[in-house]
Amino acid sequence: MDEINGIAEKLAKDMKEISVAEFFEKNRHFLGYENPTRSLLTAVKEAIDNSLEFTCQANILPTIKVKVKEIEEGKYRVSVEDNGPGVIPEKVPHAFGRVLYGSAFHKLRQSRSLFGIGIKGACLYAQLTTGKPIKVVTSTGKKIHTFEIMIDVTKNEPIVISHKEEENPSHWHGLKVEYEVAGRYVKGEASIQEYIKRTAMVNPFAEIIFDGPDGKETFKRATEKMPVQPIEIKPHPYGVQLGVLRRMLTSTKARNLIGFLTKEFSRVGRNSALKICKLAKISPSKRPQEVDKDESERLYKAMQMVKLASPPTNCLSPVGEEDLILGLKKELKADHYVAVTRPPSVYSGFPFQVEVALAYGGELPPENAILIRFANRIPLLYHQGDCVITKAVKEVDWRRYGFSQSANSLPLGPLAILVHFVSVWVPFTSEGKQAIANYPEIFKEIKLALQDAGRELAKYIRKIKKMKEKELRRSIFERYLPVVAEAVGELTDKKAEEILNKLKNMIRGEKIEGSSEKA
Amino acid sequence: MDEINGIAEKLAKDMKEISVAEFFEKNRHFLGYENPTRSLLTAVKEAIDNSLEFTCQANILPTIKVKVKEIEEGKYRVSVEDNGPGVIPEKVPHAFGRVLYGSAFHKLRQSRSLFGIGIKGACLYAQLTTGKPIKVVTSTGKKIHTFEIMIDVTKNEPIVISHKEEENPSHWHGLKVEYEVAGRYVKGEASIQEYIKRTAMVNPFAEIIFDGPDGKETFKRATEKMPVQPIEIKPHPYGVQLGVLRRMLTSTKARNLIGFLTKEFSRVGRNSALKICKLAKISPSKRPQEVDKDESERLYKAMQMVKLASPPTNCLSPVGEEDLILGLKKELKADHYVAVTRPPSVYSGFPFQVEVALAYGGELPPENAILIRFANRIPLLYHQGDCVITKAVKEVDWRRYGFSQSANSLPLGPLAILVHFVSVWVPFTSEGKQAIANYPEIFKEIKLALQDAGRELAKYIRKIKKMKEKELRRSIFERYLPVVAEAVGELTDKKAEEILNKLKNMIRGEKIEGSSEKA
Repeated sequence: MDEINGIAEKLAKDMKEISVAEFFEKNRHFLGYENPTRSLLTAVKEAIDNSLEFTCQANILPTIKVKVKEIEEGKYRVSVEDNGPGVIPEKVPHAFGRVLYGSAFHKLRQSRSLFGIGIKGACLYAQLTTGKPIKVVTSTGKKIHTFEIMIDVTKNEPIVISHKEEENPSHWHGLKVEYEVAGRYVKGEASIQEYIKRTAMVNPFAEIIFDGPDGKETFKRATEKMPVQPIEIKPHPYGVQLGVLRRMLTSTKARNLIGFLTKEFSRVGRNSALKICKLAKISPSKRPQEVDKDESERLYKAMQMVKLASPPTNCLSPVGEEDLILGLKKELKADHYVAVTRPPSVYSGFPFQVEVALAYGGELPPENAILIRFANRIPLLYHQGDCVITKAVKEVDWRRYGFSQSANSLPLGPLAILVHFVSVWVPFTSEGKQAIANYPEIFKEIKLALQDAGRELAKYIRKIKKMKEKELRRSIFERYLPVVAEAVGELTDKKAEEILNKLKNMIRGEKIEGSSEKA
Repeated sequence: MDEINGIAEKLAKDMKEISVAEFFEKNRHFLGYENPTRSLLTAVKEAIDNSLEFTCQANILPTIKVKVKEIEEGKYRVSVEDNGPGVIPEKVPHAFGRVLYGSAFHKLRQSRSLFGIGIKGACLYAQLTTGKPIKVVTSTGKKIHTFEIMIDVTKNEPIVISHKEEENPSHWHGLKVEYEVAGRYVKGEASIQEYIKRTAMVNPFAEIIFDGPDGKETFKRATEKMPVQPIEIKPHPYGVQLGVLRRMLTSTKARNLIGFLTKEFSRVGRNSALKICKLAKISPSKRPQEVDKDESERLYKAMQMVKLASPPTNCLSPVGEEDLILGLKKELKADHYVAVTRPPSVYSGFPFQVEVALAYGGELPPENAILIRFANRIPLLYHQGDCVITKAVKEVDWRRYGFSQSANSLPLGPLAILVHFVSVWVPFTSEGKQAIANYPEIFKEIKLALQDAGRELAKYIRKIKKMKEKELRRSIFERYLPVVAEAVGELTDKKAEEILNKLKNMIRGEKIEGSSEKA
């Protein structure tokens, strides 16, 4: 017994707090730092995503300059500069030097940066692999501030290595981050170039200049029209868990339950609130802080039972069918393009929306279809096999739309399938944000969107097929025309030449008819 | 410009800290709480893993009582009780009510609990879905302490709802945790029962009593022999990143560099330490805290250049070939079993080891081989497609060992493939701990282990095949024996019966020879 107690004491002595920075430093592959190639991509990606998000929030047409330069073997200097609103100097240390710190986590609103981890992850990875601080240059149009920041990993706190202020006569505003990281630069499928190319597809209003080891490349704006700003919404009663409801009851400023329900939730009017209170058998004038455990459980159940409108969807900002096709056309040379933006839907109380665009024919390869996945306007390059988008694409019966497809596989090309998922909360399978989890509501909507687009494309394919068939018939017929004309001429005693011309005109008529025909 | 400044101010106002408890509450699917079925399994699993780990650390033969009871539709009460060392009362609140708190994270030693998240995740999920606190009953042999604990999610701090002490005349020691969670109970492949069955396979010294919705089932001990206790080791120089080295230099108690290198690392003796200092051009007597940035970079590089022995491997505790076969035999009825425990190897400076056991024939199905994955004696039931084990199994050419196999697929049975990966740091692909990341060193070792085991099994399969061929030849021959005997009798004028007997004896001799033959 004393021996057991000794062991328990010994075990207790070893127990201690783990800082979240330590946790992600050691588990950096959760964040996408799993090998040199992907690590370099992740370090670049996080800065670009941030820049796009904050320029968009400030309604500024983004111009983003990305530089990647090898400084010694296996080490790269990455810098990303934008023309966004900048970060006020007081916030710089925490915004770049503290893991789990940010503005989007607590908001219900489509955003590229959900976790408050991204750029800090790059900072962690930089100091781990090269020992160098992250350099941040920023201005809101007043002075220019330059910081060097590291993270105190055991405390998850920023360390400001240096900070200097400069005059800013040209009133520049924006943000430039620079870090040195271990990595490997590659071309091809999961490359930085491909990442930027795909980013440009669904952010056609952005200009991105990539100055990399292979030279400079500019991805030009395809439109000057900024996307609609998504608006923050309140949580919907159907999407709130009991534990969260209890926290909301404690922290609300509302003085009574009816105020709490109408102000803290979306789609709850006075009538619905009264109904909920009645069902829960609690007085609508009760102070939220005084609602006890049993009552909160009844309240929770009542909230699920009352019929309410779906949450508002102005929290979402899809690309739209027109811009999707614009984006695809810019990057893929095909014969035909179709796009479908589905109406918004809801999973676990979170509004979401699915868009699909298909490109067919042209220079696309005849092998497996190219699958291009996005979430909240960010390309997903890794973990394709683990993503609900892939699952949905494989489960659609593409043979209906004129494609070959083996069981549980992508259809065969020439086809590119672009799927864009937007939501106030993307259920990524991990912090690396490369695959979306398999929620049945999401799966269903993606499948429907693919089928809508597939049907649309099938019309074109059928039309093309019919035209080809007619063309074939005509060419065969034309080959025998002189013989036919000769024979008919002999039978009717008319000139073969004349008959031939008449026959030719007949065929041309059919051809015109064929090409104007709708499938 | 002023407008821009206004936006930057507004954005700044929204930035705030995100508690790690909030983070995992919202991203609970990272921890395995992604749907009701898996959530219930995860809640049970975390408690069992904990109980096994701490009874083993205390060198106690574990007896673990697991209860799962439906209390209303979609809600279950889970309780797991062990006979381990217990937790001292001072540590209970943090050990169960604070995410990222634990004893294993900072240690290099094979352990089931790596992250300091598991049981707190269950606590988070319980209070989120049912609003109920976790109940903890524990004793180290002295008094019995009963706690009810919740987590203050926004602060990531424990809230002790209640705490009472009782006398303990029988000197009971152990730990019992109990919580109520939303979930769904299922049978079959990814069920709680299957989880416990597989746990029993690689922990044959444990007794697990499962009292579930379908009745009580006892998984008995197959051995009373406890596994070898893994010993904590120091980090190996090859596995330390620059950023971590710098932290170690700052926090060490060693007074000079030579002391630092020999005491804080494994496999660095006085000679190697001197070599490292010489290569790095730093005096061995320099105080570690005084090593500057450039010097630490040189030191880091020098540490990678000096030839050192591989890290010690007593930090690992594989199951061993004998016990693996014992475990497989207990749960799968097959004709033949083979097992291979490979020698330890190293990835990123972390020692690891791979074991493979194969079961063949018997009651195993002739379809796709059954793949049974483990890491540090814990079964992995989800994300099979994402796991390096699966990748390695698919890339082995099983046709060499007598199996059918399509490209990039599991071989066809009757075959069960058990793979066990042990390491001081398992590179799981996510916090849910269900798949191992694809490190080339790990992939290679798993493949080698599979090939070793495959070759071993192939010998048996060839032998069986030969025996079957001989048996076939013999049976054909036997069928014609009377005719042959008759004919020979006529030719030699001897009695056919006599000849028949002689011939039969000849064949039996061959049969005996055949069955003792080695392939």
